[in-house]
Amino acid sequence: MKKVFVSDRLLEIPDSPIRKLAPFATAAQKQGITVLKLNIGDPDIKTPQVMLDQLTHWVKNPISYSASQGQPEFLKALEQYYHQLGFSYLKQNNIQITTGGSEAISLALFSICNPDDEVLVFEPFYANYQSFSVQNHVHLVPITTFGHNGFHLPPKKEILSHLTSRTKAILLCNPNNPTGTVFTKTEMDTIFSLAKEFNLFVISDEVYREFVYDGRKHISILEYMPKFPRQSILLDSLSKRYSLCGARLGTLVSLNPDLMTGVLRIARGRLSSGLVDQLMASKLTEVNENYFTAIINEYQTRRDVIFSGLSQIPGVYLTNPEGAFYLVVRLPVHDAEHFCKWLLTDFSYQDTTVMLAPAAGFYLTPDLGKNEVRIAYVINQDDLKKAILIISQALLKYQQLFPL
Amino acid sequence: MKKVFVSDRLLEIPDSPIRKLAPFATAAQKQGITVLKLNIGDPDIKTPQVMLDQLTHWVKNPISYSASQGQPEFLKALEQYYHQLGFSYLKQNNIQITTGGSEAISLALFSICNPDDEVLVFEPFYANYQSFSVQNHVHLVPITTFGHNGFHLPPKKEILSHLTSRTKAILLCNPNNPTGTVFTKTEMDTIFSLAKEFNLFVISDEVYREFVYDGRKHISILEYMPKFPRQSILLDSLSKRYSLCGARLGTLVSLNPDLMTGVLRIARGRLSSGLVDQLMASKLTEVNENYFTAIINEYQTRRDVIFSGLSQIPGVYLTNPEGAFYLVVRLPVHDAEHFCKWLLTDFSYQDTTVMLAPAAGFYLTPDLGKNEVRIAYVINQDDLKKAILIISQALLKYQQLFPL
Repeated sequence: MKKVFVSDRLLEIPDSPIRKLAPFATAAQKQGITVLKLNIGDPDIKTPQVMLDQLTHWVKNPISYSASQGQPEFLKALEQYYHQLGFSYLKQNNIQITTGGSEAISLALFSICNPDDEVLVFEPFYANYQSFSVQNHVHLVPITTFGHNGFHLPPKKEILSHLTSRTKAILLCNPNNPTGTVFTKTEMDTIFSLAKEFNLFVISDEVYREFVYDGRKHISILEYMPKFPRQSILLDSLSKRYSLCGARLGTLVSLNPDLMTGVLRIARGRLSSGLVDQLMASKLTEVNENYFTAIINEYQTRRDVIFSGLSQIPGVYLTNPEGAFYLVVRLPVHDAEHFCKWLLTDFSYQDTTVMLAPAAGFYLTPDLGKNEVRIAYVINQDDLKKAILIISQALLKYQQLFPL
Repeated sequence: MKKVFVSDRLLEIPDSPIRKLAPFATAAQKQGITVLKLNIGDPDIKTPQVMLDQLTHWVKNPISYSASQGQPEFLKALEQYYHQLGFSYLKQNNIQITTGGSEAISLALFSICNPDDEVLVFEPFYANYQSFSVQNHVHLVPITTFGHNGFHLPPKKEILSHLTSRTKAILLCNPNNPTGTVFTKTEMDTIFSLAKEFNLFVISDEVYREFVYDGRKHISILEYMPKFPRQSILLDSLSKRYSLCGARLGTLVSLNPDLMTGVLRIARGRLSSGLVDQLMASKLTEVNENYFTAIINEYQTRRDVIFSGLSQIPGVYLTNPEGAFYLVVRLPVHDAEHFCKWLLTDFSYQDTTVMLAPAAGFYLTPDLGKNEVRIAYVINQDDLKKAILIISQALLKYQQLFPL
């Protein structure tokens, strides 16, 4: 028997449901097939020009380390951003710049959990939470939410039933990736009543904060933070808000001084986030308000296109997402991962196919989400309509080949 | 009693000896004092212009995710770099791009160790190894090296005596940070004979590969890798070689397919390294050979300046470093950390002072390195001479205030 020469824990890291089909997409593209990518939240919306001007006008040389907490200009800009949102109690020392929202997730889990501690999370959830949990020896405890009520939270007693002596936190993504759910004030109140009663942390991932539709108001953890200064952690990212996915910038925000001191010690150990990215992003205060209005309108229109389009396909089940730019859709197939792969390896319509993310990887409970996919509406409306047509044509053919 | 509302393990993360005095330096600067920074390996050498041109000619918009393994142009350039070094067996799938050498260290420790496994390391060692070990629940087992023989390795039987059933790897930095030691072929052979006999991994951090002086030849782990394909891991970084510290780009290189597959799963979970940084660094193949000749000559001359200058200060003990741009110096003080802090808070000479890194943080064995500092010769020769003068003046005054 050949010895596997790696650690046991490395083998437990799940593959990304968002990225694991990438080699099949590349292969399809090499055969001349256009692949419409609805699998990943990598928006086509332009990065603000004022940020790109930082690159084209670059003079600093050498490209030296930034400060471990964050480049001063960028910290200042973020402080101003949070103040403009109405949370003027936040100071720069409550903000740690992270290398993508990804690093913020990992830092939060490490900093509040000891090995084998538990964190409650509502499934389907952002798949990479599980990767960071395995890396940090934390157990995510999934509480299932369902499409029939728009993936909103279950009653408090259902959440309560998952609490154990090892539960350290409730982790929430709001607006939610992958479901597009925007949690209400009542839901947030419930979360914090649990936090108060059981001394739990609340970690709120608000990467999609601005992307709420139909006149909804986003209820941020920042509204609760002053009352729960030691227990509230905000995770944030610049990636979606300014179409800066490739700039790898996020933030961890907390009023807990022990947490922030510890997080900074970790941050010093990894030296700094990228200097160029931070100086580019520090121009966020100069981004015109119209930039947001325009992109939020655009996403809402796309949401309408995809919702109405998919709703008309027989056997497809979905509810209208309230925010972010994702939705979870139930398909009339046995195995959505097989279907997603088949779309890339065996199907095209007018030399085009679509790439979707199988949703099972967004659930921890075995067998859930097997007939669901996550769709990111990050391509333009024409391509989105084309994608809907391709999905409907593909399902017709797939159901003949692999009947339910 | 106030409850500390963080995890126990967060409290175990050591502070960086390189960066923890930074607030005192900032305070000194605010009082109009010039601080010559010899504490951190953040070179003043210019980044190659061909790389900066990538910024000033930037057109790509939006700034989207890069590939999780690495941006294709950058992977290709790195493959070419390793081929030019003479290791043409390396292919792109043996290379994982990391966000700084920092991420590569962490990935390596996670991927080969289970919790509580041990890794042998020669102290003094790069302090941040300990931060990443705590984060990954790995125990570093220090084997002390000494200035009197240039911090070269102890005899094989001494290394052997630290092996336990939990030892998974030997971690080496070559050329060494903080000592400047360049390990010989005999030393590397010893390491690999241990690896063979006890089925250990060898992790070689070769961030300073090109920086070897006096005609020495660097012996890379890449010379052993084909014979030890499952056990050899190279850690690398672009930061020092191209003065790109702020670009946060490193690599993990291995021929172990299980390791590379697992590492890529982790990499997908954190999405990608920075797009702009990678496209900038992908121009490394266009950097003129003269760039290296010039900077290596410059560092060697600085090494000569600092060695001869410090050697003349009474009570200061050092050996001539062989590579990298660091050295560990014993000072005639009880507590080098107190001296380093005092330099920033209480001393200046002609309105100038120096920032040094206390060396105790580069040792794990308690009480070692207390009268040592690490010096990075990353400032120009004139400033270096000024720094030596300041250190000598400061020691005179400090010894009066705090006699040995």
